[in-house]
Amino acid sequence: MQPKTLAELARHVGGRIIGHPDTLISSAATLENARSGQITFLSNTKYIPLVKTTQAGAVIVGQEMESAADLLIAEDPYYAFMQVVVLLYGHRKHEPIGMSPQAHIAPSAHIGQHCHIHPFVTVGPEAVIGNGCILYPGVFIGAAAKLGDDCILYPNAVVYEACLLGDRVILQANATVGQDGFGYATHKGVHHKIPQIGRVILEDDVEIGSGSAIERGTLDDTVIGKGTKIGDTVTIGHGTRIGPYCLLVPQAGIAGSATLGHHCVLGGQVGVIGHIKIGNMVRIGAQAGVIGDVPDGMEIVGSPAIDSNKARRSYALIEYLPELRRSIKDIERRLRAMEKAES
Amino acid sequence: MQPKTLAELARHVGGRIIGHPDTLISSAATLENARSGQITFLSNTKYIPLVKTTQAGAVIVGQEMESAADLLIAEDPYYAFMQVVVLLYGHRKHEPIGMSPQAHIAPSAHIGQHCHIHPFVTVGPEAVIGNGCILYPGVFIGAAAKLGDDCILYPNAVVYEACLLGDRVILQANATVGQDGFGYATHKGVHHKIPQIGRVILEDDVEIGSGSAIERGTLDDTVIGKGTKIGDTVTIGHGTRIGPYCLLVPQAGIAGSATLGHHCVLGGQVGVIGHIKIGNMVRIGAQAGVIGDVPDGMEIVGSPAIDSNKARRSYALIEYLPELRRSIKDIERRLRAMEKAES
Amino acid sequence: MQPKTLAELARHVGGRIIGHPDTLISSAATLENARSGQITFLSNTKYIPLVKTTQAGAVIVGQEMESAADLLIAEDPYYAFMQVVVLLYGHRKHEPIGMSPQAHIAPSAHIGQHCHIHPFVTVGPEAVIGNGCILYPGVFIGAAAKLGDDCILYPNAVVYEACLLGDRVILQANATVGQDGFGYATHKGVHHKIPQIGRVILEDDVEIGSGSAIERGTLDDTVIGKGTKIGDTVTIGHGTRIGPYCLLVPQAGIAGSATLGHHCVLGGQVGVIGHIKIGNMVRIGAQAGVIGDVPDGMEIVGSPAIDSNKARRSYALIEYLPELRRSIKDIERRLRAMEKAES
Repeated sequence: MQPKTLAELARHVGGRIIGHPDTLISSAATLENARSGQITFLSNTKYIPLVKTTQAGAVIVGQEMESAADLLIAEDPYYAFMQVVVLLYGHRKHEPIGMSPQAHIAPSAHIGQHCHIHPFVTVGPEAVIGNGCILYPGVFIGAAAKLGDDCILYPNAVVYEACLLGDRVILQANATVGQDGFGYATHKGVHHKIPQIGRVILEDDVEIGSGSAIERGTLDDTVIGKGTKIGDTVTIGHGTRIGPYCLLVPQAGIAGSATLGHHCVLGGQVGVIGHIKIGNMVRIGAQAGVIGDVPDGMEIVGSPAIDSNKARRSYALIEYLPELRRSIKDIERRLRAMEKAES
Repeated sequence: MQPKTLAELARHVGGRIIGHPDTLISSAATLENARSGQITFLSNTKYIPLVKTTQAGAVIVGQEMESAADLLIAEDPYYAFMQVVVLLYGHRKHEPIGMSPQAHIAPSAHIGQHCHIHPFVTVGPEAVIGNGCILYPGVFIGAAAKLGDDCILYPNAVVYEACLLGDRVILQANATVGQDGFGYATHKGVHHKIPQIGRVILEDDVEIGSGSAIERGTLDDTVIGKGTKIGDTVTIGHGTRIGPYCLLVPQAGIAGSATLGHHCVLGGQVGVIGHIKIGNMVRIGAQAGVIGDVPDGMEIVGSPAIDSNKARRSYALIEYLPELRRSIKDIERRLRAMEKAES
Repeated sequence: MQPKTLAELARHVGGRIIGHPDTLISSAATLENARSGQITFLSNTKYIPLVKTTQAGAVIVGQEMESAADLLIAEDPYYAFMQVVVLLYGHRKHEPIGMSPQAHIAPSAHIGQHCHIHPFVTVGPEAVIGNGCILYPGVFIGAAAKLGDDCILYPNAVVYEACLLGDRVILQANATVGQDGFGYATHKGVHHKIPQIGRVILEDDVEIGSGSAIERGTLDDTVIGKGTKIGDTVTIGHGTRIGPYCLLVPQAGIAGSATLGHHCVLGGQVGVIGHIKIGNMVRIGAQAGVIGDVPDGMEIVGSPAIDSNKARRSYALIEYLPELRRSIKDIERRLRAMEKAES
């Protein structure tokens, strides 16, 4: 990497420097590990003491503070740090492989310009791949599926027929988009498969993690809104609609026909039942179980999930249940004694 | 799609019409979205008001009711709707690709008639593929594995050696069947792998979701009974035996050497520990943690899982623990006051 | 399989025989199913009664006991059983396929001796594969990734660029190592991807289950220590460091930047939040939610997770909450009556 001066970095992120503008920065590291020539950041106040002792070349912070290193003060330190990391390292460099003769592209498929299609990729009939897309080995694009521009599909990611991906969609390795929804009509004890005729629509800038599985809709489409990011081994049920700019942390799961608003955050292993409505900007704590509608802006935790302020105290009290029961038994004993004395 | 008259649909499902038998139906939609020319259904009584205002061409219901649309009355409306959807749309149409020269088939493998083997498929030595099977790109069939007739394996599904699949088994993309069970003998702090010599047996009409993983048995086989349907990213431990016609919703997990009877339903993210016995027709609510045997017909929820009637009230009370504790403290204070007064 | 005498098996495991040293053993089975000519083991005292009635040829036990079969007494019966199973069956036999011409190996990649590279495998530029490695169909090895000796990667396992695998590492089918960490800087409501420049390091003898996903680090590496075994559909967050000889049962998940010591055991569906420190030899029960540091040797269960002795009683009392509330209401009523009487 070409080193940059702290002044260059400050200009790049629109920040100001407390210290030496000509400090050379060649790489980034965590606050704990950063050494001379490295830049780091502070985003959590609990690490303020580390800033006083860091051996970093520079620290990106939100305000002036005592520091062992040069400071780069930025309005949004984590965002500024992201900008610096991109400047220093760039995003992943993809091998410019062009169109592999070992890929299997249906004659009726349309491949845009400047795409890189690796060996062992399959693109089905009538599928449309936008410009600048990268399909890694083992990727499967079903018939009539459609990708926008600049999508990156990592090895063995699968897109079933007729699904739509916007621009700049990323599927990590082994992700699946558009498999059949879990829909059966049970008649006389036998589960009969219902054709799943809806699609999956991933809007622009959606990212799906490894091993995650997004079911196609039974009748309506399953939709993941623009800029929503989904972690690893997450499952989304058929016909569920997730708004833009949500974050779904690994192992979260949402059943079918649910709707989520924009900017919701679901923690790890959160479960959401089907057919409910979650508003905008809702925050759901890890492992929560959501079994009813949730209004805009609410923060919930627990299984069953309740308001987080209430829940933190409530769930913490489970530990004291044996004690509470002992208190009740003690009270009953004393009460009986008094009642006896009275009679 | 070729439109059908409501009379044709009624005949097909064995139902009767209240309204116009010659109403033309060309597609299916949800009760909320259905318009003229579309058929929908009512399976949940909470949506009865929608029937009064629907713009659908026809609604499949279980009994006569006030409706803005023609009614098709069927004994089992959801099943009838499934039949109608199959009639209108059919199941997925698979490209008739035949045997791809880009597949890698061991000379000693046996492939049945009318199979479609896509590029980049591997079929190992001595493997047997029944008639009419469809193996999508990236599918791997291990040595001596055996598939019945009319199986569909979607892209990148993997079947390890010696596993047995019955007829009409479906593996969704990126599903894995027969990987090693999680079995180690820990000796002096080191985990030694135990060869997993059992197989996985998937009986007829089993379906396995995307990203799911069914471990092969250590000594005994892992068995999934006829007609059981398993959702996405479900894991089944080594040597577990699941009876016929169960439903395992996405992200459920069962540890090793458990047995389940027939017609059990496991909700999303349910966890079942190993070496226990779950009876027939047991229903387990989402996120439940099952840590002991469960008798036939029981419905359980919660972690730890208990009888659902009891559990719904019990788990709902967690929210009121701070209040209960305050009540106890208040009682103790009043009791102390009275005791003091008495002495 | 070539049958062995019980004497041969006893010598092999360093045990002693009570019974007939010349009993012939040709296979292994569970205590419940073992018949004449088969060997089995007792590791759980609850099955002692089965030893008295077993039809097995021999049973491996830890001490003398009443038995219907010959006994092989070993210090660590389960470990001895593992040794016997390996002797009788061996580990999986891999087809000696050599280097498939249908694999796609970058010219700059280095492949060791005695490797078996199946069709449809991709090995990227500058990647290094040690001696004796087996790469099954659909495996992807990214640029500059490095595998030690004798690794086995099952079908469709994916290793992203620059990741390091030690010797004897096993990836089960559809496992993913090194996908991007779930890291975004959210600025004015938009999630900006942070380049994930760390790697994943899997030390010697690590095994990763099917569908599992190990994120690469943002800045620091994600590290899985020597001999640690990870089950199916487990997710490990970016920058997390797991010590040697841990066991992570299927569907467990650990968020980013956590550290775990050695010999920890995480049950199924355990969730661990990020940025916490779990000590050595910690045991975490199935479905537990770990939200803070855990000292060495502790055993915890529940969500939120607490000391297991306390927790088992505490969580079991949730079932009795309605009863406790009734008691409190009853007490309040009686107390009011007494207070009234006094006044």
